[in-house]
Amino acid sequence: MGGIRSVVLVSGGMDSLVTAALAADAGGTAFLHVSYGQRTEARERTAFRRIADHFDIRHRLEAAMPAVRAIGGSALTDPAIPIRTDGVDRAGIPASYVPFRNAQLLALAVSWAEVLGARSVWIGAVEEDSSGYPDCREAFFHAFGESVRLGTARPGAIRIEAPLLHKTKAEIVRLGLRLGVPFELSWSCYVSEEEACGTCDSCRLRLGAFRENGVVDPIRYAPPASRP
Amino acid sequence: MGGIRSVVLVSGGMDSLVTAALAADAGGTAFLHVSYGQRTEARERTAFRRIADHFDIRHRLEAAMPAVRAIGGSALTDPAIPIRTDGVDRAGIPASYVPFRNAQLLALAVSWAEVLGARSVWIGAVEEDSSGYPDCREAFFHAFGESVRLGTARPGAIRIEAPLLHKTKAEIVRLGLRLGVPFELSWSCYVSEEEACGTCDSCRLRLGAFRENGVVDPIRYAPPASRP
Repeated sequence: MGGIRSVVLVSGGMDSLVTAALAADAGGTAFLHVSYGQRTEARERTAFRRIADHFDIRHRLEAAMPAVRAIGGSALTDPAIPIRTDGVDRAGIPASYVPFRNAQLLALAVSWAEVLGARSVWIGAVEEDSSGYPDCREAFFHAFGESVRLGTARPGAIRIEAPLLHKTKAEIVRLGLRLGVPFELSWSCYVSEEEACGTCDSCRLRLGAFRENGVVDPIRYAPPASRP
Repeated sequence: MGGIRSVVLVSGGMDSLVTAALAADAGGTAFLHVSYGQRTEARERTAFRRIADHFDIRHRLEAAMPAVRAIGGSALTDPAIPIRTDGVDRAGIPASYVPFRNAQLLALAVSWAEVLGARSVWIGAVEEDSSGYPDCREAFFHAFGESVRLGTARPGAIRIEAPLLHKTKAEIVRLGLRLGVPFELSWSCYVSEEEACGTCDSCRLRLGAFRENGVVDPIRYAPPASRP
């Protein structure tokens, strides 16, 4: 396992793609994907594999967390809860929030980092210009990082890196364009696995970010006439 | 889901049994077991079911975390790493340490608690008189509790409770005897699933605790002559 310096959580979306590019630049990178029963998990895994191939990543792990779907409570994992297309719900937290999901993802990634001897875990979370998930707040990552410092075998050996946390979606696209990331390999839609729906919160944020940069998003979207 | 006030992590060992008794006393309790590829996971699940039946728990979840075994790095999940019978290894952390496992267990339990509307998550961790795992330290639980406070939808709604953290193993047995817990339904051995081995660190700590209380442990142990 010598030489692995970082573990990157790669969902396959555009934020994790840009994060992966930043982490992979330093070399010694391992990629982790987690299927937790999200509607588009098969499509996400395809994106993950293509992105890992692109960066020539040998250390990769596709993990499953079947209990997350069993627990439910989110539009992403419970087909009975509709995916919203109009932003947040009344309580200020979108129905697509998967309760405390990022803690589960980070805990697994830190466990793997500890076994590999890696020094950092990277996550493509975005705080302000995003969906308002509580586990995307800087304060959460700071506290979680403290629990990593205090709860692992080599105190302070593993840092949490969230390099996009305070960027807007448009800034993330701009950064990705500058880094030359293969946006065409990524997948962000919450709903569809063939053509992106173009209407869910995730598609809307993505399309808006490309539009602000005056660039066409290279993935395929359902034609507007066929959208719900 | 109305009326669920607490989620208890119940491995099926004696510490989680006593913790479950304390939590169940208040009512409105849900039990969570996690199979993560530990050697005795089938035996643990049997103990979990018997304990949940004993406390008449309707809300119960048996979760799987298959990635933990894939990650390895622990004698509990990697058959190539021997289970020690002489306490800690040279680095001060036992080979049975599953890297950052408690963070994974707690993150899942908190996710479930959030969906259920529960106010607390209970774990039977023991700090001093135990195996020296870094994710059993009070400082870790404190930091993790902060990440829960800051990373969930209703800030501060879910507490982490570790009521045995500063007890000795003998005190835990004494408390369990006072509460009348069914120790015969629990399982602590790291190695065996039929008769407890009596020699792994977990068995040694348990046997010592019963001996200090002048009580015979009601579970079956392999006869000393047949022990490794």
